[in-house]
Amino acid sequence: MEHRIHNPSLRSRIVSADEAQKWIRDGMNVGVSGFTRSGDVKAIPRALAEYKKKMGDTRRINLYSGASLGEADSDLSSQHLVGRRGPYQSDRDTRGAINRGEIQYIEQHLSHTAEWVRNGEPIDLAIIEAVAITEDGGIVPTTSVGNSPIFVQQAEQVIVEINMAMPEELIGVHDIYIPEKRPGRSPINITRVDDRIGRASIPCDPMKIVGIVFNDEPDSPSTIVPPDGETEQMAGYILELLEHEVKQGRLSERLAPLQSGVGSVANAVFNGLEQAPFDQLEIYTEVMQDAVFHLFDSDKVSFASGCSFTLSREMRDHVLSNLSKYRDRIVLRPQEISNHPEVIRRLGVIAINAALEVDIYGNVNSTHVSGSHIMNGIGGSGDFARNAGLTIFVTKSTAKDGRISSVVPFVPHVDHTEHDVDILVTEQGIADLRGLSPRERARVIIENLAHPYYKDALRDYFKRASQGGGNTPHLLQEAFSWHNRYQETGDMRQRELVLL
Amino acid sequence: MEHRIHNPSLRSRIVSADEAQKWIRDGMNVGVSGFTRSGDVKAIPRALAEYKKKMGDTRRINLYSGASLGEADSDLSSQHLVGRRGPYQSDRDTRGAINRGEIQYIEQHLSHTAEWVRNGEPIDLAIIEAVAITEDGGIVPTTSVGNSPIFVQQAEQVIVEINMAMPEELIGVHDIYIPEKRPGRSPINITRVDDRIGRASIPCDPMKIVGIVFNDEPDSPSTIVPPDGETEQMAGYILELLEHEVKQGRLSERLAPLQSGVGSVANAVFNGLEQAPFDQLEIYTEVMQDAVFHLFDSDKVSFASGCSFTLSREMRDHVLSNLSKYRDRIVLRPQEISNHPEVIRRLGVIAINAALEVDIYGNVNSTHVSGSHIMNGIGGSGDFARNAGLTIFVTKSTAKDGRISSVVPFVPHVDHTEHDVDILVTEQGIADLRGLSPRERARVIIENLAHPYYKDALRDYFKRASQGGGNTPHLLQEAFSWHNRYQETGDMRQRELVLL
Repeated sequence: MEHRIHNPSLRSRIVSADEAQKWIRDGMNVGVSGFTRSGDVKAIPRALAEYKKKMGDTRRINLYSGASLGEADSDLSSQHLVGRRGPYQSDRDTRGAINRGEIQYIEQHLSHTAEWVRNGEPIDLAIIEAVAITEDGGIVPTTSVGNSPIFVQQAEQVIVEINMAMPEELIGVHDIYIPEKRPGRSPINITRVDDRIGRASIPCDPMKIVGIVFNDEPDSPSTIVPPDGETEQMAGYILELLEHEVKQGRLSERLAPLQSGVGSVANAVFNGLEQAPFDQLEIYTEVMQDAVFHLFDSDKVSFASGCSFTLSREMRDHVLSNLSKYRDRIVLRPQEISNHPEVIRRLGVIAINAALEVDIYGNVNSTHVSGSHIMNGIGGSGDFARNAGLTIFVTKSTAKDGRISSVVPFVPHVDHTEHDVDILVTEQGIADLRGLSPRERARVIIENLAHPYYKDALRDYFKRASQGGGNTPHLLQEAFSWHNRYQETGDMRQRELVLL
Repeated sequence: MEHRIHNPSLRSRIVSADEAQKWIRDGMNVGVSGFTRSGDVKAIPRALAEYKKKMGDTRRINLYSGASLGEADSDLSSQHLVGRRGPYQSDRDTRGAINRGEIQYIEQHLSHTAEWVRNGEPIDLAIIEAVAITEDGGIVPTTSVGNSPIFVQQAEQVIVEINMAMPEELIGVHDIYIPEKRPGRSPINITRVDDRIGRASIPCDPMKIVGIVFNDEPDSPSTIVPPDGETEQMAGYILELLEHEVKQGRLSERLAPLQSGVGSVANAVFNGLEQAPFDQLEIYTEVMQDAVFHLFDSDKVSFASGCSFTLSREMRDHVLSNLSKYRDRIVLRPQEISNHPEVIRRLGVIAINAALEVDIYGNVNSTHVSGSHIMNGIGGSGDFARNAGLTIFVTKSTAKDGRISSVVPFVPHVDHTEHDVDILVTEQGIADLRGLSPRERARVIIENLAHPYYKDALRDYFKRASQGGGNTPHLLQEAFSWHNRYQETGDMRQRELVLL
């Protein structure tokens, strides 16, 4: 194990996870590795939670990460060890504590957190999962980079968890570039998805590394939701749109670098790409999912850039034991770079992300059920949606067996405004909103996207609202009536009133 | 006059405005110069409107500009000559026609329009106000650059209006850089506000210039709203905050490049800077207003970059007749560059913009009264708010003599989400939202910003909403009740019910 520590003077700092967790003090700002349950720090959070379970403990930490963690989020939240959490989570226990007001959630655009830390939010302790430590103290991340570089740079102290389940072949996969403090910052010199502009490990003064812990646990595997008829339909609309864009000369047959959020539609789109008449595709995304590696295997994708892997158990094992096959065609970057507006706009990324619901003018709610209760967080969707060359949001037209319409008069929480959305897709169809006025958008959203059951009610709302005039006509008295009805009856559908 | 056309072969293309307006055909996409009533094309729109008044006409054009036009917007809109309008306007007649549904308004982030055009929205005709035409056909803009470069690049045909009221000393003030089509785009190599990366005129194939018209009208002057006690208070809070940031080491005494929207608070802040302990300030903004030149005169500002001037009559005359004093310290760029996320984030701009209203979680409505009726448009506020190093929104705590609260439970239109807002300011105080959870934000927004008359009602809403749980707790049944009450009674205040 010690051979993973290439700086011999650091070998004396090996400690147990239980020892290391004792260094965590109440009120500390702790920055940890981990993004979409990948490359997250594992042994120390577990040791902390176990210590609390056995011994009781009044410590509470402020926990900042790349994005969602694996077991750590649920271990720490269920033991009430977290006071503040940011910038993203997707864990049941954490979500519950946030919605009860017990955890203060500092939800942020995923490209913003590094700036926030650089600008003065202190990081007392960074805990980073690594493949190895280089001779100069450099920390080689594992299956995600996330915010680890800025955490290490800004932290008072660093603890490294070397994960022996991660193969040393990961060394060289990462490209660690940290923008300078302002003023005097340079351009981020990425003009192609395969550009490398940094180094293979996170620079770290060896003096800051106060402890090294070993673990050998694989990442928690992601659950792939298999495509169903509806997600395949949605993927089909998107693929047709892309073919249309190529025919119109707006995209080449290589398309543009693709980004997709985690989810079944994105997976279905990527599966569909295997048969589609595109070639030499590139990925510039946050998260590389199974589908990216399938596309490598079918020779459809030439290069993929991301800030983490999120893989099923099978694909994880396959990728980690066949890294030599992929390592020249992938790069893992800090999330500040994978999600940077500068690079996303320069490359003209095609961004595909999921919505919870959309309104008739194209505003998107990605996060808050009924406007109050958070699911996960905005994540990187805003970084991509605002800056992409083509911004697509997908949602099934209904949820809960039709009792909820995902196309509503007014979304009770806005993550992405009408100005940040080009294309909306449901299993009912596709709405191309580019260059349309709000009233034109309303017509195409209602006609193309809404479930037939809800169409008349939407037409009726829009028609009556328009009589009052306006650029985005609304009837505020009833804008949320559908959500209210759902809260009262468990069903958005109006059973008695015949509309129109 | 002809000497302003440095390419002699083009002198034969001089025509009258009335002749030129006849070339405008029904349904054309027309891209015109003009940004905040500066450097807008003047003679041809007037001739078009006059022709219609006299002769009748069924033509309707799609009119795209940089931002707001002067007389042209009202001349064309009141004559029903506009079918579609984008990306911004601030004209009474145009606004009226949009809200009646007669003009389709393609409201966009001001940095987005150029990408939209580059990506295939056709421009049939560009009409550009110029100081001069260079020997190679280059068009030297006047007091704004706006979207003129992309319109000229993409247009089938170009008409130039040479404005003899604009001094030739303007030549050299502009820096015209047009990002490449993707893929293969380079970084925008601006790392300091005074970097020049382009050329002094808009490149144009002389063959595309089908006509040249002369005019000699100055820009419509802007109306400076003089500061009142409340705007001075708000400016005071912002200046204190900036001093605090310097003390905390987050900003140097040069601060960071400043951006401000048009409006009285921004003017008051800039006036306050004359006395403030900052030095060698820089401006990286859309619009240079009077205050920027006052700051030059008091030697507080060393350089200013923008995409237009918006000046009072006196300041306009002063600046245009003393250009030699300023010309080495200013640059006018295309709005795609002045508002580019890449540059704004790299420079860490301090952005100060106006809100119509804010909600208890920090979402901002800048545009739509009661959620339906547009005032002007989102303009560049989103380009700056999302990417700035410090994002500030200002609004008085009430409007209409207290009958409207600008701090409300839920904004009926979201232009800037809770994730894009660092600081909110009213005359009541300042709220620093950085690093706060939504519930923490609600408390500080209510306590620091709301008018005393509305505080109890906001506290009551938030308290009852929180009982239902959530990350951003809301009571959707009454989220818009204040707006509804205003629509019904002309007053948001609840006269009979005693709250709490």
